[in-house]
Amino acid sequence: MSMLTPGRAAVNVVGAASLAALTLSWMGLGRAAALAQVPNSLSSPGAVRLREIPLQQITIDDKFWSPRLEVNRTKTLDHVYQELEATGCIRNFDIAAKKATGTFGGPWWADSDVYKWIEGASYVLATHPDPALDRKVDDLIAKIAAAQEPDGYLNTHVQIEEPDLRFKDLAFFHEDFSSGHLFEAAVAHYEATGKRTLLDVAIKLANCFDATFGPGKRDGLSGHEGIELAWVRLYRATGDERYLKLAEFYLNERGKKPSVFQREYERLPPDRTVLWRAGQPINLRALQDHFFLKPLADHSFLTHPTTFDTSYSQDNLPVREQSVAVGHAVRAMFLYSGMADVAYETGDQGLLDALHRLHDNVTLRRMYVTGGIGPSSKNEGFTDDYDLPNDNAYQETCASAGMVLWNYRLFKLTGDGQYMDLVERSLYNAVLAGVSLQGNTFCYATPLACDVKFARQPWFEVPCCPTTAARFFPSIGRYAYNQSADGVWVNLFIGGSANVTLADGSRMVLHQTTGYPWNGGTRLQIDVDRPEEATLHLRVPGWASTWSITVNGKPARRGTADGPEVSRGYAHFHRHWAKGDVVEITFPMDVVKMEANPKVLQSRGQIALRRGPLVYCLEQPDNQADLGRIALSRNAKLDARFEPALLGGVTVITGEGRLQDPDSWQNQLYRPVRAGTGEPVSIKAIPYCVWGNRGQKEMKVWIDAAQ
Amino acid sequence: MSMLTPGRAAVNVVGAASLAALTLSWMGLGRAAALAQVPNSLSSPGAVRLREIPLQQITIDDKFWSPRLEVNRTKTLDHVYQELEATGCIRNFDIAAKKATGTFGGPWWADSDVYKWIEGASYVLATHPDPALDRKVDDLIAKIAAAQEPDGYLNTHVQIEEPDLRFKDLAFFHEDFSSGHLFEAAVAHYEATGKRTLLDVAIKLANCFDATFGPGKRDGLSGHEGIELAWVRLYRATGDERYLKLAEFYLNERGKKPSVFQREYERLPPDRTVLWRAGQPINLRALQDHFFLKPLADHSFLTHPTTFDTSYSQDNLPVREQSVAVGHAVRAMFLYSGMADVAYETGDQGLLDALHRLHDNVTLRRMYVTGGIGPSSKNEGFTDDYDLPNDNAYQETCASAGMVLWNYRLFKLTGDGQYMDLVERSLYNAVLAGVSLQGNTFCYATPLACDVKFARQPWFEVPCCPTTAARFFPSIGRYAYNQSADGVWVNLFIGGSANVTLADGSRMVLHQTTGYPWNGGTRLQIDVDRPEEATLHLRVPGWASTWSITVNGKPARRGTADGPEVSRGYAHFHRHWAKGDVVEITFPMDVVKMEANPKVLQSRGQIALRRGPLVYCLEQPDNQADLGRIALSRNAKLDARFEPALLGGVTVITGEGRLQDPDSWQNQLYRPVRAGTGEPVSIKAIPYCVWGNRGQKEMKVWIDAAQ
Repeated sequence: MSMLTPGRAAVNVVGAASLAALTLSWMGLGRAAALAQVPNSLSSPGAVRLREIPLQQITIDDKFWSPRLEVNRTKTLDHVYQELEATGCIRNFDIAAKKATGTFGGPWWADSDVYKWIEGASYVLATHPDPALDRKVDDLIAKIAAAQEPDGYLNTHVQIEEPDLRFKDLAFFHEDFSSGHLFEAAVAHYEATGKRTLLDVAIKLANCFDATFGPGKRDGLSGHEGIELAWVRLYRATGDERYLKLAEFYLNERGKKPSVFQREYERLPPDRTVLWRAGQPINLRALQDHFFLKPLADHSFLTHPTTFDTSYSQDNLPVREQSVAVGHAVRAMFLYSGMADVAYETGDQGLLDALHRLHDNVTLRRMYVTGGIGPSSKNEGFTDDYDLPNDNAYQETCASAGMVLWNYRLFKLTGDGQYMDLVERSLYNAVLAGVSLQGNTFCYATPLACDVKFARQPWFEVPCCPTTAARFFPSIGRYAYNQSADGVWVNLFIGGSANVTLADGSRMVLHQTTGYPWNGGTRLQIDVDRPEEATLHLRVPGWASTWSITVNGKPARRGTADGPEVSRGYAHFHRHWAKGDVVEITFPMDVVKMEANPKVLQSRGQIALRRGPLVYCLEQPDNQADLGRIALSRNAKLDARFEPALLGGVTVITGEGRLQDPDSWQNQLYRPVRAGTGEPVSIKAIPYCVWGNRGQKEMKVWIDAAQ
Repeated sequence: MSMLTPGRAAVNVVGAASLAALTLSWMGLGRAAALAQVPNSLSSPGAVRLREIPLQQITIDDKFWSPRLEVNRTKTLDHVYQELEATGCIRNFDIAAKKATGTFGGPWWADSDVYKWIEGASYVLATHPDPALDRKVDDLIAKIAAAQEPDGYLNTHVQIEEPDLRFKDLAFFHEDFSSGHLFEAAVAHYEATGKRTLLDVAIKLANCFDATFGPGKRDGLSGHEGIELAWVRLYRATGDERYLKLAEFYLNERGKKPSVFQREYERLPPDRTVLWRAGQPINLRALQDHFFLKPLADHSFLTHPTTFDTSYSQDNLPVREQSVAVGHAVRAMFLYSGMADVAYETGDQGLLDALHRLHDNVTLRRMYVTGGIGPSSKNEGFTDDYDLPNDNAYQETCASAGMVLWNYRLFKLTGDGQYMDLVERSLYNAVLAGVSLQGNTFCYATPLACDVKFARQPWFEVPCCPTTAARFFPSIGRYAYNQSADGVWVNLFIGGSANVTLADGSRMVLHQTTGYPWNGGTRLQIDVDRPEEATLHLRVPGWASTWSITVNGKPARRGTADGPEVSRGYAHFHRHWAKGDVVEITFPMDVVKMEANPKVLQSRGQIALRRGPLVYCLEQPDNQADLGRIALSRNAKLDARFEPALLGGVTVITGEGRLQDPDSWQNQLYRPVRAGTGEPVSIKAIPYCVWGNRGQKEMKVWIDAAQ
C-alpha cells in the first residue's frame, strides 16, 4: 500500500536548471568548476560512498544496448577465443605445464589477454546460463591451473622463455599486469559461478607475490599498472587484508628516486642485452622473438638510459604528489583506478587529493569530446595540455574503457553525477566506437577524423583492445545502478531491471524502460514486497538543459515536501515506495553545436555535434560533398530523425552546411580574409559510435565553422 | 636633351592587376603558385641575372630608415664593440698572439662575432667617412693579424683552448663558420676602404683551408654553414677560382652516408669526453669551460649517437636532393644562400632545382606572416609543415636576416619580384623587430605573441643576433637597387640615391623620395649625363592590389609603345632617359585583414593586420582592454592614421573590436557554441617592427576573429 497521499505523491518539479549552469556542464566541467571551489570534491560533505550491485541482479533489455551485447556474447567472445588460440596464447599454458612443446605465442603479456577473455565470459555466465561456455571456461581454467608452479608463480612467458628472469624485469615483463588480470578474472568467475577453481589459482599466485614483495621484502612496482586495483578486488572477494596492503605497497613504491625500475634494472644479469623503451628496459631477445623489432626504431619514446623517462609509467612522482596525467594512458587509468579503490577502502586523503587534481587535469585539458584520452601514438598516451589532434588521435580503446573504470570509481567515492556523466560519455562514444557492429573488428587507435586508410582490424599484434571489448561490454550493467545506505541509484538509462536488497533486507526491483539515447524519455516502475521508505537517486545528466519528472503520472514539482532534491547531478526522491509506483524522467534531445576551448588548437574554429549523450560525426557515405569541403554555420538549423534501416537504427542529424572551396588554399600560406560563406550543401551526421561500419570511408567529428 | 616627344612620354598605365591575382600574392605566394606551373622559376626563360651596385654608390636619406641606421651607426656599433670587449671576445686575439694571458672569452665561435662587427663597421665606413672608426677597425685588424698562425690558421678558441683539436671537431668548433665571417668582413673592409690588411689575413687563412680540405685532401664540412657563401664572396673579390671550388666542395660534402661529421667524430682522440648535440659531437671540456652546461639538459635536440640527427645541420641529404627545410634555421639560410651563390657563378641546375623546392617548402609551409622562420627553441629551427606557434615563436633574428640573404640571392638569379617581396617582408617586419628603437637591446627569439615576461636584451651568452644587427642594417642599401645588362632595378622604396655606371660606361643617378612605408607614393628623378637608352625596372610589390604610375607627371598607360611592361613583379620601362625625368608610382595603402592557411593551427580563426609591407600587432599600452579579450570581426572597418609622437612616428591602425569574456572558458574544455559577439571595444595596432619599445608589455600579432 502506498503511504503517499495524492497530494504528496504529485511532488515536485518541472526541473530546469539555468542554461548557463547546466548545458555548460555537459562535459561535467561546469560542475568541476563549481567543485573547484571546495578543497576536494572527493571528500566534500555531500560525498556518499556507493556500493555495487552484483551483476546477476541486473538485467539489460534495451533497444540500443541489447543488440550490441548479444553480438558481444555470440560473436566477439568466440572471435577473441579463436584468435587467442590461433596466436598460441592459450597453448602457452600447455607448454608451461609441460603438456606441449613449442615456443611462446603472442606478446609477452599474452596471459593477460586469456584472463580478460575468462573475465568477459564470466560476466556473460552471470546473466546468461550457458553450459557450453561454462565447460569451455572450466577447461581453460584447468590449463591455467596446470601451468602454475608449485610455489604459485604463474607467467607463461617467463616460464617458457626467460625462467631465470622471474621477477627480475619488473618494468618490462608485465608479470604483475598479467597477474592483476588473473585476479580480476578469478573474482568475476567466482562471483558468476560460485566455483573456486580460478580463485584458488589466483590466491596461490597472490601469495607468491606476497612472499616476494612488500615492506621488508623486495621492492615491487608494476611496469604496466593494473595489479593495484586487482589487489583490492581480490581483497574484497577474500577478505584477506594482505592484498589490500599489497595494493597500497604497489602505489607507494611509485615515484621513488631512483626509480624502483632503475634499481631493478641495475640488478639484471650483466650479460643481458637490454634496450630501453621509454625509460623501461627491454630485453632484446624477447624483442627479437616477438614483433616489436621493426617498429622499434620508429618509437620516439625510446630514450637513452641517461634520460630515463619515468613519466611513461607514471613513475615520475609519488602518487600522492601527482597532479598531471602523463605517459601511457592505459597505465594511467589503471593506476588512478587503483588509487581510487585503495582510497575507497582506507579513506586515504592524500590519494583523494591527488585524484582530484589528476581528474581536473584530464577533464579540463587532456580529454577528447568523446571522453577518450591519450592523443599520441608515440607513447600511447598523454602529451601536453590542450594537445588533442583529431586526425591522428590515438585515443586507444583500452584507455577509453579506462576512463569508465576510473570515473566509475570516483562516482562510487562520491555519488557525484559529474563522474557518471563522464562514464556515460566515454562509454557511449569512445569505448563503443572501439568495436564494429558485427563485433569482430576493433579499433586500437580511434581517430576523430580519418581518411580511407583507416579501418578496424580483427586482431592486433598487441591484442589488448579486442580482449578489453570482450571483458568490458558484458559488465556494463555494473555502471547502471548502485546502492547506498539509504537506497538505490539509477545512473544510466538502459532498459532492464535491477533487483536490490535494501538495508533492511527487503527487496526492491526497478524496471526501466527507455528510448535512450535516441529519445529522452525513461520510465522506472518500482516493485517492492511491501511499502518501503527509501531514497531513489535518479541521475539528471549534466548535458540536459532542462528535464521534467513525473511520479505516478503527475508532475513532481520541486520544492514540495516529497519533491526530489536535485543536487550533484541526481534527483533524490526520499519516499515511501509502493508496488507499481512509476517515476518518469524526460530530457529534451536537442542537437547541440559544441566548441572546444580555443587552447585546443586542433579544433579551433570548428564545431562538433552532440545530441543527448552521443557525439556525432560526418561520414562520407552519408554526404555527397567531400567532407573536407563541408563547413557549418554556427547558427545553422539542424534536425534529428530516426532512420531504422541505417546502421541497426540510429538517429541522424541533418541540416544545411556550406561548401568550401577545397583548392582555395592551394599554394598559399597567408591571404586576405575572404567574404562569403560558400554554396549551401546538405549534410548528415551519424553517431560517432557507429562510424566505420560501411567500409573504409572518410570521417570527421569536428566540422569547420562557416564564417 | 630628352628624346621623348610629349606624345610618347606620357605613356602607359593606371595599372591594376586583379585583386585575386595580386592581393592574394602579397606574400609572394600567388606568384609562387603561378611559378609552380613551370618546372623551375630559377631558370625559367624570363630569368635575368642581376649584379650588385657597390654600397658606396648608394645613399639613404629616408624618414623611416635614416633614424634607424643612424642609431645603428652611433649606438649599436659602439654597444656591440663594448660587449665584445667586456666578454673577452677581442682579448682572445691578444691571448692567441701571446700578447696577453688569460682564458678564452665568449662562446667558442666568438671570433665570428668580432668579424661581424668589422663587417658592419666597414659598411658604415663605405658611406660615412669616420677617421675614429677607421682607426678602431685598423687596430682590431692588427690584433687579428697578430693572432694568425704562420701557416694561416686562425681560430682563437682552438688556438687557446684546444690546440690539438685544430680541424678535428668540424661539426662543433665552428672554425669554418668563423672563417666565413672573416672572409665576409675582409671583403667588406677592402671594398669600403681599399685596404688589404684584413683581406690578406683572410686569403692566408683561406689558403690554409685550401691546403687541408678539398678533393684528394681531407673531407671538409661546416658544422654551422656560412663559409660556403663566404668562399664565393672571396672568389668574387680576388678572382681566385680555388675559393669557388671550395664553395662547391663544401656543398658537395653535405649529405654523405655516413656523414662527414660522423667519420670525423670517430677519428677524434679516444680520451676526449664528447657528448652529442643534435647529432653533432660536443666536446665536454669546451662545454664546461663555457656556458652551455646548465641549459644542456633542457635541450631536447641532444640525441644519442645511435640516432645521429643529421638534419640539424642540413646534412640529411645531398644538397641537390633536398626539398624540405630542416634543422637549425640560421644554418639552413646560410646553406641555401651559399647554394644560390654557387649556382649564380656556375649555373648548376641541380642546385637551382633544389633551391626552388626548398623555397616552396619554406614560403608555403614554414614561414611566419612576418617573413621570419624557425618556430622551435628546441633546435633553433624548423619543425613540421604548418607548425607556426605564435606564443613561443623562436623566429631568431639571425634566421630572419638569413631570409633576406637567401631571397636576395634568388632575386639576383632571376629578377623575379616574388623574391624581393620576401626580402621586403622579412626586412620590414621580422628583422627590424630584432632591435629596439634605441639600438642597444635585441631579440634573439622574436615571438609573435608574448606576455610581460619577454623583453629585448642588451647581450646574450650566444651573441650572434646583436652582431647580426650590427652588420646587417648598414648594408640594406645593397637590397634597394641592382643592375642588369639593360639597366637599373629599383627594388625597395627607400629615399636616397643610386649612382649607377651603365653598360656603356655612362652614369645614371636615381634620386628616390618616398613616404614609404607610411604612404604609397614614391618619386624617382633620373639624372643622366646625356640622354640614355636604358631600362628602368621598378618594383610593383606583390601585396599592392592596384597601382598608378606617371612619367613626367602624366599617367603612363599600359599598352602604349613606351608603357612599362609589367611582369614578374616589376614595371619595366624601356626608354630614352633624359636628365630630370621623373617617374612616380603610387600604391593604395589599405589596411588588409590577413588569415593563415587553416593548416596553421596556431593561427586558425585569427586575423593579422597588414598595411603596405608592414605587419601590425596589438600592444597593451595602446589598448585599454586586455589583449586576451579582444576579438575582431572579419568585416570590421579599420582606419589608419599617422601618429608623429608615437614610437618615432608610426602609422597606427584603429577600429572597433569585440570584447570577449576572458573567463568564459575557465574550467571548461568543451561547451555549446555561444551566440553574440561581445561588447564593442576600441582597438589600436602598431607596426610589429616597433613593438616592445615601451617596457615589457603583452603583444600579439594574430587577433581572434569575432564570430
